[in-house]
Amino acid sequence: MNQKQPNDRFTKERILEALSQVYHPQMETRSLVELGMIKDVQISSDRLEISLALPFRKVPAREKIETSIHARLAALAPEVECKIEIVEMSPEQRASFNATVQGRDPEDHATHEVKQVVAVMSGKGGVGKSSVAGLLASALNRRGHRVGVLDADITGPSIPHLFGMKQAPTSGPEGIVPPETEQGIKLISINLLLPNENQPVVWRGPLIARAIQQFWSDIAWGDLDYLIVDLPPGTSDAAITVMQSLPLHGIVLVTSPQDLAGMVVRKAAIMAQNLGIRILGLVENMSFAICPNCGTKIEIFGPSQAQNTAETSNIPLLGTIPLDPQLAVMCDAGRVESYEGETFEPVLEEIFTKL
Amino acid sequence: MNQKQPNDRFTKERILEALSQVYHPQMETRSLVELGMIKDVQISSDRLEISLALPFRKVPAREKIETSIHARLAALAPEVECKIEIVEMSPEQRASFNATVQGRDPEDHATHEVKQVVAVMSGKGGVGKSSVAGLLASALNRRGHRVGVLDADITGPSIPHLFGMKQAPTSGPEGIVPPETEQGIKLISINLLLPNENQPVVWRGPLIARAIQQFWSDIAWGDLDYLIVDLPPGTSDAAITVMQSLPLHGIVLVTSPQDLAGMVVRKAAIMAQNLGIRILGLVENMSFAICPNCGTKIEIFGPSQAQNTAETSNIPLLGTIPLDPQLAVMCDAGRVESYEGETFEPVLEEIFTKL
Repeated sequence: MNQKQPNDRFTKERILEALSQVYHPQMETRSLVELGMIKDVQISSDRLEISLALPFRKVPAREKIETSIHARLAALAPEVECKIEIVEMSPEQRASFNATVQGRDPEDHATHEVKQVVAVMSGKGGVGKSSVAGLLASALNRRGHRVGVLDADITGPSIPHLFGMKQAPTSGPEGIVPPETEQGIKLISINLLLPNENQPVVWRGPLIARAIQQFWSDIAWGDLDYLIVDLPPGTSDAAITVMQSLPLHGIVLVTSPQDLAGMVVRKAAIMAQNLGIRILGLVENMSFAICPNCGTKIEIFGPSQAQNTAETSNIPLLGTIPLDPQLAVMCDAGRVESYEGETFEPVLEEIFTKL
Repeated sequence: MNQKQPNDRFTKERILEALSQVYHPQMETRSLVELGMIKDVQISSDRLEISLALPFRKVPAREKIETSIHARLAALAPEVECKIEIVEMSPEQRASFNATVQGRDPEDHATHEVKQVVAVMSGKGGVGKSSVAGLLASALNRRGHRVGVLDADITGPSIPHLFGMKQAPTSGPEGIVPPETEQGIKLISINLLLPNENQPVVWRGPLIARAIQQFWSDIAWGDLDYLIVDLPPGTSDAAITVMQSLPLHGIVLVTSPQDLAGMVVRKAAIMAQNLGIRILGLVENMSFAICPNCGTKIEIFGPSQAQNTAETSNIPLLGTIPLDPQLAVMCDAGRVESYEGETFEPVLEEIFTKL
C-alpha cells in the first residue's frame, strides 16, 4: 500500500502555530488557540482533523471561524483536506469563554467552588418558578447538600419572601457574604439589598445584567453542591446573562396548564437549546386544585397541556404538581423550607436522577 | 402705598431671552425655552414666578435645572426674588419631550391620533394582565369605541393568542397596518411578526425598547379612542419605555391574592408614581374559585390582599375577579372578545368612570 507520508509541515506544533494567527471574529486580539477553542488536532496521511470548541453549536460566529481556519490551513497546505469537528464547551468553559469575550475576568469567581448550577426558568410569569426553585433548594438541603439560591429576578424578586429572609448580606474578606436561612441555605436577592422591599428597581437591561453577574462573581458563596438560580419571566437580559455568564449545568422549565403558558415555555426551551444549555425537564405547576369540601378535582387553568408541551419541545416531563393552598400559605409566611408536600416528591426524584 | 415699579429689565421677553441661554443638563444644545419647559412667566413688582414644566415631579435633573434658572436670573437682577413653580407635563407633552431628549423625532407618530393610551401593568407575572387587557379592550370596543391593543410583552406575548389572531400586519402608505380582530380591534404584537409563534425573541433591553417605540410610532393605528398597552412583568426596559415614550393617560394595576404579588405590585405602583403616571386603580384577579360540584368558594392563592395592597399604595381598588375556568378556556381558544362574564362588569364600570 502506497501510504503518503505526512508532510513535515504537518506537525501538531506547526498547525497550532498557524492557528495562533487565526483570530476570533469578535475579538481581534485573541486567537482561537489562546481562547482555548482548539481542543485537538489529529493528523493522518492526507487529512487534518481539528476539534473546535464552541460555547454552543449554533453560535453566530461559527461560519466565520470555520472559514478562517480553512483559509489559514489551505495557505499552509492546499492539497490537504481539513475537517472541522465541533465540540461544545462544558458549562465552566463556556462561562469562562464568555467572560473573556465580554472583556470580564474569567477567574472572577475564584473565591467559590460551586459544583452544579441549576436555573429554574419558565418564560411565562406566575407559574410558580420561585416556589419550585425554593422547594428544590430546600429538598437538596434536607438531603445534606450545601445549597445556595441566586435570585436573578431583579425587578420582581420573590426568593427572600418565600424563605422569610430580610437580613442584608455582610462584607467579608472574600466578598459579600450571603445570609443563611434557618436551615442553612445561602441566599442572595436584590431585595436583601434594598432599604424597603417595596422599592422598585427601575433599571434597564445593562444594569440587570451587571447585577446578576455580580451575584455570581462578587458573592462569597463558598463551597456549594448546588446553586439554584431563580430566573424572571422572559428571554431577555436576565435569561441571556444567566445562560452566558454562569456555568449552567441545566435548567428546569416550569409551566402551567394554560395553552398560553405552553407557547411561552416552548420559546424558553428553544432559547436554551439554541444556546446549548441542557434542559433537565419540564414541571407543570398548578395542574389542578382539590375542593376542600367535596374533594372534586378542579382544572382551574383548563386541562393539562404538559405532555404536549414536553413532546413538542422534545424534553422530558418531570411531573405535574397540583395547586396546594397550604403551599401558598407557607410561601406567604416565609416558610417554604418547612413545606414537605408529598406531591412534589416524585418531581424532585426525577430532577435528582438528572443532576 | 409705595409700590415699587417693575424694573425695565423685567419684561417677559427679557426673561425668556435669558432663559433661552439656560440649557437642559442632559442636552447641552437645547434650552429650556426651546424644549417648551417654561410654561409661564409672571412678573410682579419685586418678584418673578416661573412655571417650569417637567415630565414628572421627581425627575433627577430637577435640582440642576432650578439652580441654573436661579443663577441666570440672579445675574440679570440679583435683588429680585424668583420663585419656580413646577407643573407636570401632559401625557402628550411628556412623550414628545422624552422623544426630543432621547434624540428621536417627537412627531414620529404624526400619522395617528390616539385619544387615550392606557397600560395594564402588574410587575408580577401570571396574574392575568393580558386577560384584563383583552377584556378591557373588548368591552370598550363593544361600547362603540375605536380600540387598539399594543402588546408590549416582547418576550412573552399573549395578546394574539387571546384574540385568536395569526394574521401578520401589512404595509400601507402610512406605515405598518395592524390586523383587526373579528370585532374590529386593531392589534400589534411581536408574535404577529414571527414566522412561528414558538420562536423565542432573545433580545437585550435596547432592542426591546426599540420594538415598543416602533409599535407606537411606525404602526398606522389611525384614529383610536383607546390604545390598551399590555406590559410584561417587571419594571425594566418595557415598562420604562412605555412610561417614557408613550403619551400614557393612566395605568391599571393587576394583582393576585398572594402576598408576594402585592409586594411586586407595590413596586410597580411606586415606579408609576415616581414617573408621574396616573394609576387608575388596582384589580385583583384570581381572587377565588368556585367548586363546580358543591359551590364552595376556594381561596386558591390564599385570602384576598387587594384592599391592603390598594391602601398601602394609596390607589383605588377597582374590584376583585374570581377565577373563571370558562375565561381560561375562551382565552385558550382565542375568543376573549366573546367572553361576557358578569364578574368583570363592575370592574369595567369602575375603570370607565376614570377614563
